Amino acid sequence: MNINGKAMRTIWVKPDGFPVEIIDQTALPHALKTVALKTCDDAAYAIQAMLVRGAPLIGVTAAYGVALAMREDASDSSLDEAITLLAAQRPTAVNLRWALDQMRGALAGIPNEERPRAAFKFAAKLATDDVEMCRKIGAHGLEIIKKIAASKPGQPVNILTHCNAGWLACIDWGTATAPIYQAHNAGIPVHVFVDETRPRNQGASLTAFELAQAGVPHTLICDNAGGHYMQSGVVDLVITGTDRVAANGDVANKIGTYLKALAAFDNDVPFYVALPSSTIDWTMPSGKDIPIEERSADEVLHVAGRLANGQVASVAIAPPGTKAGNPAFDMTPARLVTGLITERGICNATPDGLLTLYPEHRSGGSAVA
Amino acid sequence: MNINGKAMRTIWVKPDGFPVEIIDQTALPHALKTVALKTCDDAAYAIQAMLVRGAPLIGVTAAYGVALAMREDASDSSLDEAITLLAAQRPTAVNLRWALDQMRGALAGIPNEERPRAAFKFAAKLATDDVEMCRKIGAHGLEIIKKIAASKPGQPVNILTHCNAGWLACIDWGTATAPIYQAHNAGIPVHVFVDETRPRNQGASLTAFELAQAGVPHTLICDNAGGHYMQSGVVDLVITGTDRVAANGDVANKIGTYLKALAAFDNDVPFYVALPSSTIDWTMPSGKDIPIEERSADEVLHVAGRLANGQVASVAIAPPGTKAGNPAFDMTPARLVTGLITERGICNATPDGLLTLYPEHRSGGSAVA
Repeated sequence: MNINGKAMRTIWVKPDGFPVEIIDQTALPHALKTVALKTCDDAAYAIQAMLVRGAPLIGVTAAYGVALAMREDASDSSLDEAITLLAAQRPTAVNLRWALDQMRGALAGIPNEERPRAAFKFAAKLATDDVEMCRKIGAHGLEIIKKIAASKPGQPVNILTHCNAGWLACIDWGTATAPIYQAHNAGIPVHVFVDETRPRNQGASLTAFELAQAGVPHTLICDNAGGHYMQSGVVDLVITGTDRVAANGDVANKIGTYLKALAAFDNDVPFYVALPSSTIDWTMPSGKDIPIEERSADEVLHVAGRLANGQVASVAIAPPGTKAGNPAFDMTPARLVTGLITERGICNATPDGLLTLYPEHRSGGSAVA
Repeated sequence: MNINGKAMRTIWVKPDGFPVEIIDQTALPHALKTVALKTCDDAAYAIQAMLVRGAPLIGVTAAYGVALAMREDASDSSLDEAITLLAAQRPTAVNLRWALDQMRGALAGIPNEERPRAAFKFAAKLATDDVEMCRKIGAHGLEIIKKIAASKPGQPVNILTHCNAGWLACIDWGTATAPIYQAHNAGIPVHVFVDETRPRNQGASLTAFELAQAGVPHTLICDNAGGHYMQSGVVDLVITGTDRVAANGDVANKIGTYLKALAAFDNDVPFYVALPSSTIDWTMPSGKDIPIEERSADEVLHVAGRLANGQVASVAIAPPGTKAGNPAFDMTPARLVTGLITERGICNATPDGLLTLYPEHRSGGSAVA
């Protein structure tokens, strides 16, 4: 997607093969900064400090982290160490673990001297695959938007989204935003209600930014407001991303998603979750067991933004000494989810729904690739 | 209640009868400022700019606004003008209209020369009555907390509240907080989950402030987090205030209340709303007709707080040019409300529940005072 008219991705390798570069998403929307990742530690830090975030992008960054580790020491113990380090940075997103498993598999049996090249190549393949998966998610989700558009000719389709499951959370296109961008590109009028998504305000800082860059009409709203807009009948559709889907269709996503799912259900607004299949945790029978990351209280107690003079600063919103709780994700029960939009199509958020699209995961079932 | 150990109310008249003074709540929690209201325009501005907020306090401030108008010109036309001006400042809170009706009634038939004294006296009576109503709300709500406390000996009762329905929203005690303060005073261990309450952060700036001043343990959380905490089983009870209750028990309150009510219902957490009867709009058959105030987009686009150097500043959180929507209230359907805690006791959020406590409002029924 474009930033200031120039096509960009969220992570790339410099033309001569080193270093890896990323957009520092903590600086957006106030500044566009790129950061070089030269070591596995750099990649781990970028994930932990959320210079990169979003389940698919975390996965690809971790893959490049392994490649950077291989570049310095291609031994098995270095590989193990890198994977252990990277996996520990964020506990909720399953793509992180998935991408590391993929890297381990790809490097198994490859002689040490060939590992650095193979690792970079495979990380690049994960990135390319993610772009293609997001494109397909967009194509499937587009059908939902088309149907709604047909029911209200000349009127925009109003879509509410939470957090940033946009191209900035992936490599390109995004998950929740892919259908929106494809509808916009197809000339279907869309308008997006963007939840600001406290505490880190990824909606206000990232989703509003990328929608503006793409020319998609949108309105920023407080996380508190979505229920009211749904009651008022002005939301046609909710699409969010997810950090992990359990085998029963329960969805872990950014804190507050569950509240929007409840409101959508209460007002008969379709609630879809968009994801590449790498986000499905087939080993997790239900969402109740998904670990929920507790992040620093400082994220709740402070808000960052631009001062009147353009400088970026952080302000404390509560009395000194206030304690804060900061669970980063919540779990939306499958019963509240209208459907899951994946790269293979749309399915019910049920074990059967998922297994119909991904029959290779039927226990004892036939393997289909 | 106390601020820095000194007993204060939210609005008072100087000992020699003029001017009226208020705490400027837009400066909290960073500074304790008092502001003098010398004219009806001052009172109208204080309401509009939210130097005072909270349905009961808005009502009493408007009453003093009428008194200040009478001090300058005690004619009928001045009274009409003052009431029209003050009523227009906030559309959702019904106490505002109620207090103005009370003032009009109290001044009807009083000779102009006696009006200023009568108006100040009656405004003071509304303030005193509000304190007594809040005390009674606290006594009734305390019974709910006592029952929960009895079921988990030695463990704190965890109460979630949204926005500020504390003493800062009233004259003293508060509505939603009155049961909490009375439980705390009675030695029952309580702990409060404080929703920060974007966009104006009244939870972070006011509720956290007044709970800290009273020594009540509390944890500030993002508005997004309450659903997760309820799913996790760590919330025993939700108590909020309200700006207007319809005759069927529907509740208009700060934007986001509806989302918490949905989560409470989904997790079998009791959801109570605390209010003085002046908040009940007997003329409004259901909440669907309650006007929802749309406030400035700037409240969404900016967040105020303390910089590292202690100065108070406002930061912009979204890209320049971002549009924002800012509905200030939402409507919680009565079906999600466990009960209404009023000065006369606790009732179901139903027409019958309300009329059992307030039989004088039965149409054609017998008048009971």
